[in-house]
Amino acid sequence: MTPEQFRTIGYRLVDWIAEYRANLPSRCVMSNERPGAIREKLASFPPYSGDEFDAVLADFERVIVPGITHWNHPSFFASAPSSTSLAAVLGELLASGLGVSCTTWHASPAGTELEELVMDWFRQMLGLSDAFHGVIHDSSSTAALVAALCARERATDDQRLGAGLHASSPLTAYTSDQAHGCVEKALLLAGIGRQHIRFIETDERYAMRADLLRTRIEDDIRAGMLPCVVVATIGTHDTAGVDPLVPIGRVASRYGVWLHIDAATAGAAMVAPECRPHWTGIESADSLAVDLHRWLGAGMDCTAYYVRDTDRLQRVMSTSHHGTMDDETTSYRHWGIPSDRRFRALKCWFLLREQGTNGLIERVRRDIQHAKWLEAQVRKADGWEVAAPVLFQTVCVRHIPHGLSSAEITSAEIDQHNLRWVERVNESGKAYLTSTLIDGRRVARISIGAEATELSHIRDLWALMQQCAGAR
Amino acid sequence: MTPEQFRTIGYRLVDWIAEYRANLPSRCVMSNERPGAIREKLASFPPYSGDEFDAVLADFERVIVPGITHWNHPSFFASAPSSTSLAAVLGELLASGLGVSCTTWHASPAGTELEELVMDWFRQMLGLSDAFHGVIHDSSSTAALVAALCARERATDDQRLGAGLHASSPLTAYTSDQAHGCVEKALLLAGIGRQHIRFIETDERYAMRADLLRTRIEDDIRAGMLPCVVVATIGTHDTAGVDPLVPIGRVASRYGVWLHIDAATAGAAMVAPECRPHWTGIESADSLAVDLHRWLGAGMDCTAYYVRDTDRLQRVMSTSHHGTMDDETTSYRHWGIPSDRRFRALKCWFLLREQGTNGLIERVRRDIQHAKWLEAQVRKADGWEVAAPVLFQTVCVRHIPHGLSSAEITSAEIDQHNLRWVERVNESGKAYLTSTLIDGRRVARISIGAEATELSHIRDLWALMQQCAGAR
Repeated sequence: MTPEQFRTIGYRLVDWIAEYRANLPSRCVMSNERPGAIREKLASFPPYSGDEFDAVLADFERVIVPGITHWNHPSFFASAPSSTSLAAVLGELLASGLGVSCTTWHASPAGTELEELVMDWFRQMLGLSDAFHGVIHDSSSTAALVAALCARERATDDQRLGAGLHASSPLTAYTSDQAHGCVEKALLLAGIGRQHIRFIETDERYAMRADLLRTRIEDDIRAGMLPCVVVATIGTHDTAGVDPLVPIGRVASRYGVWLHIDAATAGAAMVAPECRPHWTGIESADSLAVDLHRWLGAGMDCTAYYVRDTDRLQRVMSTSHHGTMDDETTSYRHWGIPSDRRFRALKCWFLLREQGTNGLIERVRRDIQHAKWLEAQVRKADGWEVAAPVLFQTVCVRHIPHGLSSAEITSAEIDQHNLRWVERVNESGKAYLTSTLIDGRRVARISIGAEATELSHIRDLWALMQQCAGAR
Repeated sequence: MTPEQFRTIGYRLVDWIAEYRANLPSRCVMSNERPGAIREKLASFPPYSGDEFDAVLADFERVIVPGITHWNHPSFFASAPSSTSLAAVLGELLASGLGVSCTTWHASPAGTELEELVMDWFRQMLGLSDAFHGVIHDSSSTAALVAALCARERATDDQRLGAGLHASSPLTAYTSDQAHGCVEKALLLAGIGRQHIRFIETDERYAMRADLLRTRIEDDIRAGMLPCVVVATIGTHDTAGVDPLVPIGRVASRYGVWLHIDAATAGAAMVAPECRPHWTGIESADSLAVDLHRWLGAGMDCTAYYVRDTDRLQRVMSTSHHGTMDDETTSYRHWGIPSDRRFRALKCWFLLREQGTNGLIERVRRDIQHAKWLEAQVRKADGWEVAAPVLFQTVCVRHIPHGLSSAEITSAEIDQHNLRWVERVNESGKAYLTSTLIDGRRVARISIGAEATELSHIRDLWALMQQCAGAR
């Protein structure tokens, strides 16, 4: 493709995205394709000769778009937000056009220095002290793995430089029974067996019980175990529960255990100073992760990972052959797993410059107000229950069929009813939300945070929920 | 930013990229910024209010662009190619505009099915059997880690479900003394201590000696070790050496050791059938990785990882809580480390459709011919030596100062001379290459593979090399 052809098609795709975003509300949120339907419409064999790009774009419209679930739709309330602000789209476009690797400073000085800059800007926006230094990973899952590996190496006095993990004492790790599955996965991949992962019970607000954490660590030490890492969560996936960092930090510090904070979605709220009491004690963390690609709009895949001990991080994530530092410059390949690194800082910089601290604060506040508004409607409506405290942008609700008290209907029937009305909402195409199990009960989970979502969309959702639940 | 503002600025950035690519030859390849200079020109504090995008773009031109080393420049010969074809830039733009996460099939059916499709197309293009199934990882480094983790779990009968790695027999791992640093890093992160990583010696063609591999595995088994994984390389980083897969595969199979193939750069050559003898025996691999973002032009960060035992991959990369399979559909989050996954298949599909198998074959052949042409010039020039066999797109050369034989000058002086002339090439801004150590001797390393590189650029490079080395 020549630059002139690129210009012509590039204009068309810019137009396509502008129209797509402008007209998103008119699309069905969730794709209704059946499994396999998309592949059936596409050739099984690669083309021998190149195609005209018009044919490719026609197939994109005909086959791919109907198979898309629209995460940037104002009525997307499933999973977690994957908001991609248009400023970030432009940053990704330019980064892709440049096509550099940000593996070392020398590979492209601006790539490394802009990553240092935006990570430091974002640190300030979150109200973190300058003891934390940031790097971009692809996801909070990867960040949890990096934290677990650094914790393992600290606890075992760098076993990797000796005989390996088989030669160390049995390591134990701690997280809550509400932690995201990626935390357990990270601990398992780090070589800590499932028998030695402690899922600490949570209280009625779905927050880790620090007293039980302490007891468990002490029991493990008495049993000859080597407690290695605590992963606490700010904003659990299901209910947005908040683990109490002050007592957890005290326990971690007392027993020399690495404290990692998974603040994937809710961490973004800390740009608003009034939210920061939720993570009081954050300075006791050894590392923490906040997704920029969820609530804040930087677009997949872009997680800010902050760590205090950058020397350890670099030692663990490099090899002796290549040294920890090439020279006085930063080599981000020694701050994470991949050697080849995309220029993700550019889209972050575009986003932060275009929206400003204030823009992000206002968006986060708006979405929390939306969640509170929905909570208030649910609380005052007959037959509806709020199933978990609403702290950020996640609202969990349950509906008891009209005219019945919970004594007249089994819990399994209520679960089925809630599952069904959520399905009806999704099948309508007008909104998309998911359900989850809380304390063994099926509840609907509304996760707010697409950039385009205004109060009107929440009002429409509430009306749709009541209609689909047969509540009016 | 409104869709209309996006349209206006999007056009400008499309224009910028078109002009950037068209005029790349006139730019200095390597940035000459000094460390810290870029951050000094940018505000240390995040803006409170959003900026006009014009100001952001002005800063991009003024501060960022001078700090860019141009990996898509036709005279970029450093490291490995990071070619980003304009078709891939368009795919990244659209994927970013859609902003979906390809974590499960349900998250966006087209995201998963297109990834299945392009991974299968690319499998066919590489001449691999349909016993291999593909997934996109960010890099070959991550792919090596995933392979090491799966190998560890197979060797230890899934220790992660029990007491953890500390309870298993001591694991050993094998790679060559020419393997990329990311292989050792992956093995260390998997919990195999450095004392148990065997760097098997290579022959005069920088290929792993399978006889020594076998001896070493047998010695380790006798010593009570548990051999876990062999990582062989097709196209080592320094010299593009090729490990002999037939005897290595035989040894791995005999002792039940996982065989992973790192074919990060050179694997791309296998789209050309005449190159496939270089990886005869590939079907004995348990897993292999080829970067699509290097030689082939899919743009950072996009590695094809192929594996035979997808059940094991999914079991290792998921948790029991979440099951290995959600239903009959593919959940790629259970095929790798991150939960959130960008829609990378779209740019791959654009690239493969636009260029066709034939387009990629012709490009790979062209670049290999360029390497052979340069090799031929070096061989017939006085004072120049070819330092390693030229099999693909990498050429390693050494120059002995004019009029001297190597008896009249110390090896250290020759090393210094070669370091200096490479620096002079780079400082000229007309080309960018690196040097490396082979058998303890400093050599210049020319890695060919930018999409824009034609024979004229290789001719210019050769003239520049001779000039900078004082060879004419």
